[in-house]
Amino acid sequence: MSMRFAKGHGTGNDFVILPDPDGELALSAPLVAELCDRHTGLGADGVLRVVRTAAAGVPQAAGQAAEWFMDYRNADGSEAEMCGNGIRVFARFLLDSGLAAGPQIPVATRSGTRIVRAAAGGEFSVDMGPAEVLGAGSAGLGEQTVSGLAISVGNPHLACIVTEPVAGIDLSAPPVLDPAQFPDGANVEVLRVTGNRRVEMRVYERGSGATLSCGTGAVATAVAAAAAAGQWPEPALSWAVDVPGGTLTVTPGATVSVLTGPAELVAAGELDAGWLAARSPARVSGIA
Amino acid sequence: MSMRFAKGHGTGNDFVILPDPDGELALSAPLVAELCDRHTGLGADGVLRVVRTAAAGVPQAAGQAAEWFMDYRNADGSEAEMCGNGIRVFARFLLDSGLAAGPQIPVATRSGTRIVRAAAGGEFSVDMGPAEVLGAGSAGLGEQTVSGLAISVGNPHLACIVTEPVAGIDLSAPPVLDPAQFPDGANVEVLRVTGNRRVEMRVYERGSGATLSCGTGAVATAVAAAAAAGQWPEPALSWAVDVPGGTLTVTPGATVSVLTGPAELVAAGELDAGWLAARSPARVSGIA
Repeated sequence: MSMRFAKGHGTGNDFVILPDPDGELALSAPLVAELCDRHTGLGADGVLRVVRTAAAGVPQAAGQAAEWFMDYRNADGSEAEMCGNGIRVFARFLLDSGLAAGPQIPVATRSGTRIVRAAAGGEFSVDMGPAEVLGAGSAGLGEQTVSGLAISVGNPHLACIVTEPVAGIDLSAPPVLDPAQFPDGANVEVLRVTGNRRVEMRVYERGSGATLSCGTGAVATAVAAAAAAGQWPEPALSWAVDVPGGTLTVTPGATVSVLTGPAELVAAGELDAGWLAARSPARVSGIA
Repeated sequence: MSMRFAKGHGTGNDFVILPDPDGELALSAPLVAELCDRHTGLGADGVLRVVRTAAAGVPQAAGQAAEWFMDYRNADGSEAEMCGNGIRVFARFLLDSGLAAGPQIPVATRSGTRIVRAAAGGEFSVDMGPAEVLGAGSAGLGEQTVSGLAISVGNPHLACIVTEPVAGIDLSAPPVLDPAQFPDGANVEVLRVTGNRRVEMRVYERGSGATLSCGTGAVATAVAAAAAAGQWPEPALSWAVDVPGGTLTVTPGATVSVLTGPAELVAAGELDAGWLAARSPARVSGIA
């Protein structure tokens, strides 16, 4: 048995990358969780399986053809539609591995095909698709209830503007949301305006907990900040979003938002055969 | 530039292993800390550099010759004498890599040469050297002060018997110790007797914080439990020590203690050249 992997991160949002071009890997939720365990596995916020779209059996809309599909899983093994930090790391992996040429790389995701572009300073810009403001909502965070805007960026968010420093807000437990409004849950952002088109943000991600960064969360954050500034959906101006793991730049828009930020590969190698063998065969079917 | 690594753990105490047989790697503290960062590096409680004793320039006592030296570093980059979980992972790496034959593997450490033996069920037993009870001490843990026994297991410990479940004890901040008693600091264990020669234990490790397990801490724990049971230094009886990451077995003794437990390799590979290049050259001298 062997299984190749790479490890990468974007603003501290980190991923185990599993190259599986021909879609041979039946990746179970328990195996994803074990890979993401930070002490007994490799450790990550999630897994990016790199599979050819044709082999993944993913339907593609006309004019949206992409050679590669990003099969993104949360750290608990659940599937997710899209991840704005993950897709930059995914593109970096494709480029560095010679699996794509750039500078424009279309990537199929569960929320449609997104275009990734190499940007200045080794960063990548990502077409994050349309953003939509859905209305008001609220979240219970520890002993506190905060109100915010429900926003779709392919996946559901609740972006909550606060006036205190976000470092002090309790994100240790899953936010309490209205299940009628968010039947599939949501990522919850808390954000504070700190300067001219600059905000600080922390996020609780569905299935992963509080993370150092979240790309779609940064987009939702910029949309909420722009709306509060009377700049939504026009004019489209860029916002700096400071997250615990670094800084992202977002130009929010109703038809398309653009997210720019770093993507770094840390290492690559193979899972240990003994480690894999100790896992249930049902968790690792397809491993040759 | 290239740099090979492996990742492994023993009862959830996890390590980045750096094979450096000829001692060519000048491993700086900042690089160790970056490797151990769980989001932007590989992530680990510490680093085990695998270097030939002759190349490491480590003096060895007569009759204590060992081919391999375990250069153990804490997650903050500081050097440490010895790690009872790390040395089992170190031995597993030597065996699996064909660098040692077993079943007995002498390993040089900063606190002398230790013998590691392959045991039943894929576990390893480790000669942990002598343990010495040094006297009473106390540690401030959050709002609580606990008293315990200062014990040397090559490195300094304060093992504190408590009566409440150890899961509830605050190990979020460094314990406050008497600097006159512990000029180099100490690992602090809290332990509770849960059965017949069975204890549960949590540990705050110098330089790493609260970890899932600590091998020398398990020995200090068994010594403190045996002393409280009137069984120190004789008779030498084995104790089961339940740590958050699993179970260790310890037979404490004044002249030699034996620690038995699992050791698992998770993965192996190479650090990304771009990741290394982005680090200061001073941090990575010796990387070919």
